[in-house]
Amino acid sequence: MAETFDFTLLQTDTGSRARLGRFRTPHGDVHTPAFAPVGTQATVKALDPRDLHELGAELILANTYHLYLRPGADVVAEMGGLHAFMGWDGPILTDSGGFQVFSLAENRKVSDEGVVFGSHVDGSRHTFTPEMAVGVQEQLGADIIMCFDECPEPHDRAYNEEALARTHAWAARCRAAQRRTDQALFGIVQGGVFPDLRQASAEFLVGLDFPGYAIGGLSVGESKAQMHAMLDVVTPLLPEGKPRYLMGVGAPEDLLEGVARGIDLFDCVLPTRLARNAALFTHQGRINIRNAQYARDPAPVEEGCGCYTCRTFSRAYLRHLFKAGEILAARLATIHNVHFLLQLARDMRAAIAEDCFGAFKDEFLAGYPIIPHEVRAANRERRAQSLGR
Amino acid sequence: MAETFDFTLLQTDTGSRARLGRFRTPHGDVHTPAFAPVGTQATVKALDPRDLHELGAELILANTYHLYLRPGADVVAEMGGLHAFMGWDGPILTDSGGFQVFSLAENRKVSDEGVVFGSHVDGSRHTFTPEMAVGVQEQLGADIIMCFDECPEPHDRAYNEEALARTHAWAARCRAAQRRTDQALFGIVQGGVFPDLRQASAEFLVGLDFPGYAIGGLSVGESKAQMHAMLDVVTPLLPEGKPRYLMGVGAPEDLLEGVARGIDLFDCVLPTRLARNAALFTHQGRINIRNAQYARDPAPVEEGCGCYTCRTFSRAYLRHLFKAGEILAARLATIHNVHFLLQLARDMRAAIAEDCFGAFKDEFLAGYPIIPHEVRAANRERRAQSLGR
Repeated sequence: MAETFDFTLLQTDTGSRARLGRFRTPHGDVHTPAFAPVGTQATVKALDPRDLHELGAELILANTYHLYLRPGADVVAEMGGLHAFMGWDGPILTDSGGFQVFSLAENRKVSDEGVVFGSHVDGSRHTFTPEMAVGVQEQLGADIIMCFDECPEPHDRAYNEEALARTHAWAARCRAAQRRTDQALFGIVQGGVFPDLRQASAEFLVGLDFPGYAIGGLSVGESKAQMHAMLDVVTPLLPEGKPRYLMGVGAPEDLLEGVARGIDLFDCVLPTRLARNAALFTHQGRINIRNAQYARDPAPVEEGCGCYTCRTFSRAYLRHLFKAGEILAARLATIHNVHFLLQLARDMRAAIAEDCFGAFKDEFLAGYPIIPHEVRAANRERRAQSLGR
Repeated sequence: MAETFDFTLLQTDTGSRARLGRFRTPHGDVHTPAFAPVGTQATVKALDPRDLHELGAELILANTYHLYLRPGADVVAEMGGLHAFMGWDGPILTDSGGFQVFSLAENRKVSDEGVVFGSHVDGSRHTFTPEMAVGVQEQLGADIIMCFDECPEPHDRAYNEEALARTHAWAARCRAAQRRTDQALFGIVQGGVFPDLRQASAEFLVGLDFPGYAIGGLSVGESKAQMHAMLDVVTPLLPEGKPRYLMGVGAPEDLLEGVARGIDLFDCVLPTRLARNAALFTHQGRINIRNAQYARDPAPVEEGCGCYTCRTFSRAYLRHLFKAGEILAARLATIHNVHFLLQLARDMRAAIAEDCFGAFKDEFLAGYPIIPHEVRAANRERRAQSLGR
């Protein structure tokens, strides 16, 4: 397995902890820093595999929780595994189901053994244990798989201590449960916003010698400053020669701050979810293409953008598609937003190669208005409520 | 204009009235018999222009009524016309708005002058006259445009007589109103299910010397036998050297029967609408891919089909996408269904070229179960009710 998943550090930035790397997987190389679009239910929403290749995606994520419930991991396995099932021949990462079980599922009951939860699809009862989470991910067959972890509210000290003990015990059980040798199992550092817990978690997991390490439980309600502080604690404790994955993070400014702190991999639903809500990335911040000001705007979403959408269509046309409720709206907007983050990853790699990542980061952030913490928190609250309905 | 819109009859079938032709337009050639996918609101639902080129579409249709209401013909004109607006550089046909005004719009009031109707978008009042229908279509800028016509219930003799008189007067006014010389204006033969009215309509319109002729008011509730009888009356009266367009017809069996009776062009929402409802064409009839029997079916929708969907994905994956409510479901299903009809058109052209259209038609129909008239009528009724809601 060591050879199949070789991670090569190609260059490090002198002005930051940014790294340029190449992560070899059975389905191809992932050049890092990399952003992975999310294909929750075995499809990156509104895109097909050719789109993803054209966009230059080298890694996509799929959700174990969703695929376990529908169509079922056994169905995916019978159809030849996730790559064959969804027609994507590049690298895939599956999460463990932990995040969804703890954030989405109703009526969950946690014990040291595992979690009992109700399906969001039909309310049926299910049990997930660390052994099952690995077993299901082995049926799905992704290149990178994740340990089953508990994702607590980040500010609750007592809960974080208790959950971390379980997450560590579960990590060891996941390691022991793994049977396939063609999948890289990553450990997940937890510990909320508490530096000492994060430190203990990183040290414990490094002791288990995983082929890669994720940092979980961030971008879940804490401030940007807290996220940065946790990264500053954790990444220096992780081995240089293994990839580091910041889970669920995808805002442009967070990619830059994460890379500056030594992160190699990111994933997030943000670009695809925003796209379906008509919110489009530009280097001057997000725009909402439904706005009346774009009704007769012949310019592309962003001047100079190389994506198919910007090369072909006007803001006026995109606005029309959204106003008219056309399916193509979601597709074209998603192409643009995913391109924006993949291009940002490419630009970051080029900047690290030229040893000028700091200047690149400063220049990008100087023009890019960051959504204030309060607004993000309110958006998250609204989204949670709408999911709860 | 005669040269721009040259229609060349390349071959005629000896065993039927089927014709092989090439219709030259300012945006390229349409090889006939041809099927035009429908892009009601300036997008063939779920597809982008590259998809349409890859599928081999040579002509698409857009709806004047919808585009007039949203985003507005003036917006489309300001954005450079329909081709530039929607990023499609091939031939486009726009209808006149007549069909929608008479079938969709609420509270319409018809006079010899034109029609006053309420918008389905916001209830606002609008007036369409023959002159306006041409003017709006000149703003949109399609290659082929249609006369404003009245579409009565096909079995009501008195209403058909009255409506036909208006349709004829309006055809003459449309002819007179046309200003642009780079658009081919087609006349529309009406007359319900009444052979003498159909004959009178064909003769009247041929007298106005249009560059092409459409047959309207069919596939709107009459039986297949009645549709065939009307085609048998009309096409022999139309000039050999002009294209003939059967409006709103797209069931595979209707394409075959239409071509056998001398039709060159077809359009219909059927393949795209069925696709969004998980109903997929095969040479053995339609299948509904949501059915449980496809849950673990590794085969493509149709063995041997050359479309991207069938080349790449299993029935099991398509079923999963539909069950999971994924946007990609609509896209992949639409690709397959549009391919099916465009391939049927290509196969018909090849059969005519080899002078064996009759054998080709018989062989196709022998394997293809036709939806009974009663089921089609019930489906139409259900659809009308759901639109009325």
